[in-house]
Amino acid sequence: VERYELITFLSDFGWQGGYVAACEATLAAICPHARVLHVSHEVALGDVRDGATTLARVAPLTPPAVHLAVVDPGVGTERRPLALQTDRGDLLVGPDNGLLGPAAAALGGVVSAWRLVPERVRLTASLPANGLSSTFHGRDLFAPAAALLACGSPVAALAEPMPAEGLATLPPPLLERLPGFVRAEVVEVDRFGNVALSLNLDSVAPVPDTVAVEVEGEPEPAWLARVVRTFGDLKPGELGLLQDSWGHAGLTLNAASAAELLGARRGSVIRLVLTSAT
Amino acid sequence: VERYELITFLSDFGWQGGYVAACEATLAAICPHARVLHVSHEVALGDVRDGATTLARVAPLTPPAVHLAVVDPGVGTERRPLALQTDRGDLLVGPDNGLLGPAAAALGGVVSAWRLVPERVRLTASLPANGLSSTFHGRDLFAPAAALLACGSPVAALAEPMPAEGLATLPPPLLERLPGFVRAEVVEVDRFGNVALSLNLDSVAPVPDTVAVEVEGEPEPAWLARVVRTFGDLKPGELGLLQDSWGHAGLTLNAASAAELLGARRGSVIRLVLTSAT
Amino acid sequence: VERYELITFLSDFGWQGGYVAACEATLAAICPHARVLHVSHEVALGDVRDGATTLARVAPLTPPAVHLAVVDPGVGTERRPLALQTDRGDLLVGPDNGLLGPAAAALGGVVSAWRLVPERVRLTASLPANGLSSTFHGRDLFAPAAALLACGSPVAALAEPMPAEGLATLPPPLLERLPGFVRAEVVEVDRFGNVALSLNLDSVAPVPDTVAVEVEGEPEPAWLARVVRTFGDLKPGELGLLQDSWGHAGLTLNAASAAELLGARRGSVIRLVLTSAT
Repeated sequence: VERYELITFLSDFGWQGGYVAACEATLAAICPHARVLHVSHEVALGDVRDGATTLARVAPLTPPAVHLAVVDPGVGTERRPLALQTDRGDLLVGPDNGLLGPAAAALGGVVSAWRLVPERVRLTASLPANGLSSTFHGRDLFAPAAALLACGSPVAALAEPMPAEGLATLPPPLLERLPGFVRAEVVEVDRFGNVALSLNLDSVAPVPDTVAVEVEGEPEPAWLARVVRTFGDLKPGELGLLQDSWGHAGLTLNAASAAELLGARRGSVIRLVLTSAT
Repeated sequence: VERYELITFLSDFGWQGGYVAACEATLAAICPHARVLHVSHEVALGDVRDGATTLARVAPLTPPAVHLAVVDPGVGTERRPLALQTDRGDLLVGPDNGLLGPAAAALGGVVSAWRLVPERVRLTASLPANGLSSTFHGRDLFAPAAALLACGSPVAALAEPMPAEGLATLPPPLLERLPGFVRAEVVEVDRFGNVALSLNLDSVAPVPDTVAVEVEGEPEPAWLARVVRTFGDLKPGELGLLQDSWGHAGLTLNAASAAELLGARRGSVIRLVLTSAT
Repeated sequence: VERYELITFLSDFGWQGGYVAACEATLAAICPHARVLHVSHEVALGDVRDGATTLARVAPLTPPAVHLAVVDPGVGTERRPLALQTDRGDLLVGPDNGLLGPAAAALGGVVSAWRLVPERVRLTASLPANGLSSTFHGRDLFAPAAALLACGSPVAALAEPMPAEGLATLPPPLLERLPGFVRAEVVEVDRFGNVALSLNLDSVAPVPDTVAVEVEGEPEPAWLARVVRTFGDLKPGELGLLQDSWGHAGLTLNAASAAELLGARRGSVIRLVLTSAT
């Protein structure tokens, strides 16, 4: 049985009130040797897709690890608590709502899927069996399970096998290739106001020098974006389109917010006219 | 003399400007082996009770540790700097303003109380004796003391004993049980807008199926809350009352902010009519 | 060749989206033994001076370390990627835009300056040579370089020497001493609303009991600030001037925001009339 040196941890808890720290304290109490790497606790509230995207970015960059992820609007209902073994040798722990799928895929896919049994987890962790709250499974179930797995508990001791085909999945973001243009969904607006789309620019050939950009539902008719390599290639106020560092087409301004300029937010649909506009 | 593997750290500093990191750097310089677990640095500004509540939630979940806590509006005045030994074997380090009391109680109570002597702390830590600022004792006094204690300095080498009876305490939050209803104080509004009250729902018997809710000072006459187990038991827009994961009665909405709906914030007084409303 | 136990990390990434964690995952993958100390990821967007100030505060408090700092509006352009060796034995890694200079000075000055060669860094880290994005050198270049250096790679294996005289520098903040008054720049507004100035109060003698304060460009004519030692010396609503914990003259209110009262923000110019106002 393998031990892990690293536990990553993602949630939508924020840092107020001790929710994150309650989970980390539990990790430290059960598996003191494992280092904890905080992926993000600023996931949009209850936004499973936002959490899934962030986790899938980071997980493949770590050494093999236990990945604890809790964005769990269905806590205390019938949704299943999971542990997933991946091809790379990682373990993913969290609710069965689609949160873990993209990270599992990025780690080579699910090798075996398990439904955590709360009583077994708590018993193995020497926690009171009746101590499972109905609203905070991060502290009461998922963190104990992640810690036990990191410290070498076999997953079969904590969980029942289940078919990977039965796992909940998220629908993919919208991406429609039409004659002369593409309809793509905004999958992220980052802190800098960069607008990432559900389109990989490498899949477009040839990429014209400039692209007309339209945000569906916004009155402004269309913007012109110049295709560039990086932020610094743009003049102040000039809209750019580039391949971002996660493989998405991204709309950007140099030192200003493209999202604000365009009136775009996550979930907005954007049309890119990819034939040369000149 | 005991060494500790873990130092927890709570403050109201926020992460801008390097205040947290200055303390953590000091911990790492003086006691490199100890792991630092950040409890929260988003405590409301100068809000001792908010910090005390958060620390008391997390501290009992850690392995025995040195707990460094700095919410210190009285920094540089006559308020005493403390080290408290608890029954569980933890040490709490911070200002004498009530911040440490609830955590100490959660750790079995104070076994011995000590007043830190800044000159001794700084001398033992090989810091310039005249380097104590009047506005940042986190960096200049409390972090050095916590680090020394974690690395095995006896508390008697850094501090003078004092009677535990003399420690500053916070008044308990309002809770009044009257015929047919309860007046309780809002002790927390979390990131999700859940409203936690100074009432343990387990102390109410029988709990009716629905409860009338009134926010004192708000024009809206009263809301009906259905008593449920978890968020997912509620229909969209339906107000719920549940026992939250910290032992508080909590008002909640499914995927929306109960605090916003009710116009409640920390310190608000809420009346719960606990006789069946039907 | 030296190994380091500690890597500090500062950026303007914020915690959303996994940017910070992608870098930390890379550090953990390449140099698992090194502890990571987060200095701040809340640096104002693209604000090199803000990052430089924060890093220079924290770096001298750590044990000798590799300091990774990424506030990099020029990412992907011709600006050079750096590694700097300091007199104290630290290594600073980041872009050549002035970000590292104040920390290097606080660590005894630059002993040798190096221009990182991306291909060498990525080859040594067993990363695909063609994997350098044009927009996220934190993950693709700086974090790998910092991790390799912390784990004992000689800097000469990753970089070319360059003259320290050629490094980019930031202009110092405004400070003008005129007959009877001083013009100083606001270098920080912290979470508490304290206003730190580009003036060391110890350089003023004698300091009067009260100081007239004027914010250039604000209509309000002038405020009176009482010179005090700490926040608690002030009455509610009373403006104070003190020597703050980083060696700056600071304008402050007790439990309220001086910045809001004065209408001051970072970059504002403030006149202090240092002759006694009575």
